[in-house]
Amino acid sequence: MALVVVGSVAYDGVETPHGSVDRMLGGAATYISLAAGYFTPVKLVAVVGDDFAPEDAGLLASRGIDLTGLERVPGGKTFFWSGVYSADMNDRTTLRTDLNVFADFNPKLPEPYRSEPYLFLGNIQPALQESVRAQMHRVKLAGGDTMNYWIDDFRAELLKTLKDWDFLLINDSEARLLSGEQNLRRAAAKIQEMGPRTLVVKRGEYGAVLFRGKSHFMAPGYLLESVFDPTGAGDSFAGGFMGYLAGRRVALDGAEIDFADLRRAVIYGSVMGSFCCEQFGVDRFRTLTREEIEARYEEFKSCTAF
Amino acid sequence: MALVVVGSVAYDGVETPHGSVDRMLGGAATYISLAAGYFTPVKLVAVVGDDFAPEDAGLLASRGIDLTGLERVPGGKTFFWSGVYSADMNDRTTLRTDLNVFADFNPKLPEPYRSEPYLFLGNIQPALQESVRAQMHRVKLAGGDTMNYWIDDFRAELLKTLKDWDFLLINDSEARLLSGEQNLRRAAAKIQEMGPRTLVVKRGEYGAVLFRGKSHFMAPGYLLESVFDPTGAGDSFAGGFMGYLAGRRVALDGAEIDFADLRRAVIYGSVMGSFCCEQFGVDRFRTLTREEIEARYEEFKSCTAF
Repeated sequence: MALVVVGSVAYDGVETPHGSVDRMLGGAATYISLAAGYFTPVKLVAVVGDDFAPEDAGLLASRGIDLTGLERVPGGKTFFWSGVYSADMNDRTTLRTDLNVFADFNPKLPEPYRSEPYLFLGNIQPALQESVRAQMHRVKLAGGDTMNYWIDDFRAELLKTLKDWDFLLINDSEARLLSGEQNLRRAAAKIQEMGPRTLVVKRGEYGAVLFRGKSHFMAPGYLLESVFDPTGAGDSFAGGFMGYLAGRRVALDGAEIDFADLRRAVIYGSVMGSFCCEQFGVDRFRTLTREEIEARYEEFKSCTAF
Repeated sequence: MALVVVGSVAYDGVETPHGSVDRMLGGAATYISLAAGYFTPVKLVAVVGDDFAPEDAGLLASRGIDLTGLERVPGGKTFFWSGVYSADMNDRTTLRTDLNVFADFNPKLPEPYRSEPYLFLGNIQPALQESVRAQMHRVKLAGGDTMNYWIDDFRAELLKTLKDWDFLLINDSEARLLSGEQNLRRAAAKIQEMGPRTLVVKRGEYGAVLFRGKSHFMAPGYLLESVFDPTGAGDSFAGGFMGYLAGRRVALDGAEIDFADLRRAVIYGSVMGSFCCEQFGVDRFRTLTREEIEARYEEFKSCTAF
């Protein structure tokens, strides 16, 4: 029982106070898949150009990530993004966005993907998210991410899409924008009425808050000794969150939900986001072990219990 | 065994998106004393003018706060501050600061105060904090607050004063300024070397982090449904933190420390800070009961445990 992940696979150029890399493997679906892969089998849906390097495909495949759904466009170029982070790494400025083959991304799921029970819809156009959702026959748990651009300019499509989602995972400014409410609790209540009964609001270095029904759960952010590169941290959070739930075979559709599992999923999300920041790009995931993940989960427990 | 609190008692004018008040009881020592008073007897040291209203003194006295050390300057006016909050209430602009009698504040402790075991030094000039510390004969636990102005312009005095403190309670930007370190864990390590073995870094709506030795404890901020007025929230946190420790007769000077007590003190601090925001100025403390405090403490537990 695998998790289907849809979104961008890209090359990134990143500059942080700790150094810079001109071109490295990136993209939301890459981070989500790598993080989720520690907990559950993953099937990726994305598009790349024929400049996509065999060693990058090799890294994903080495984690057991199914690449049947990774479309390659002959003569096309892979999505490229570059940006530079502020001194405290809480802000970043985009230098360049070349959508390339991603501009015409129209995800078609391979037949074996369509009967999987878990679906994570990365941050792409809401109508495409809906089309992917419709291609899945037996989804037990579906949800995903979005961003300010879709909230502002594709609001009707987004609201239509959100109706069928079990959960939504966004950051605090997106939650405020989507709901029109400044206060996070009131924002969460409004968003839950749009469809997703479970909402996770990511707050960067300050952690995350999970809302479900009238309950909520607050997780502080892990305090890293040094942050090398925050790129992909939010997506790694998503991968840890959803990967853990899929690995536990959790369903959110009604009675089967266990709030304790959701709480643990948020902590695993924070754990994966924190590891992501320790090295440039996806590098930390080249060496990270499940034992290190469990150790940090326990550390989280000892730093928050009272 | 009482807690001695030194700092400002003032009148504030405050404007938030929820309304405005031209003149109301305020000042750091006021909030600290009112919050701490739920946990332990408090003896206040501060200065006011003869415009200080009997009903304001009455509120403090009604909470058992000892006002022997509240100096009244005949013909003088009480410290006045006014400010306006931004729409999200995360920033505020000072409109007016009239130090008045506070400009010549030179705290002299009444004799019965000097043998008390607990001391909280509110945010005043570091040399004055040191003078107060020196007037106390049998302190078991002393610490306090400071601000960017003293860190920048009175650094030598501040560092001299800090050497004798058991704990320091500041916000994250002050911690970075004091240490010269952007990363909070490294900032905390540097500050602990300056003297205070225990450091509490307040992060506003995002909670607080406690550092002691190589351990730390993270508490998220309580999610309020509506924030009316954040004025005094940090001082109420300090009052809850220190009041709880004094009430438990905790000492930080060496072997007697119990990290579990410090964790609970941070949560009580967060609880008191959150109540403070629910109404204008000190108004929430007019009606707040110990039972409500305990209920919110338990709510914190259920919203953070996993």
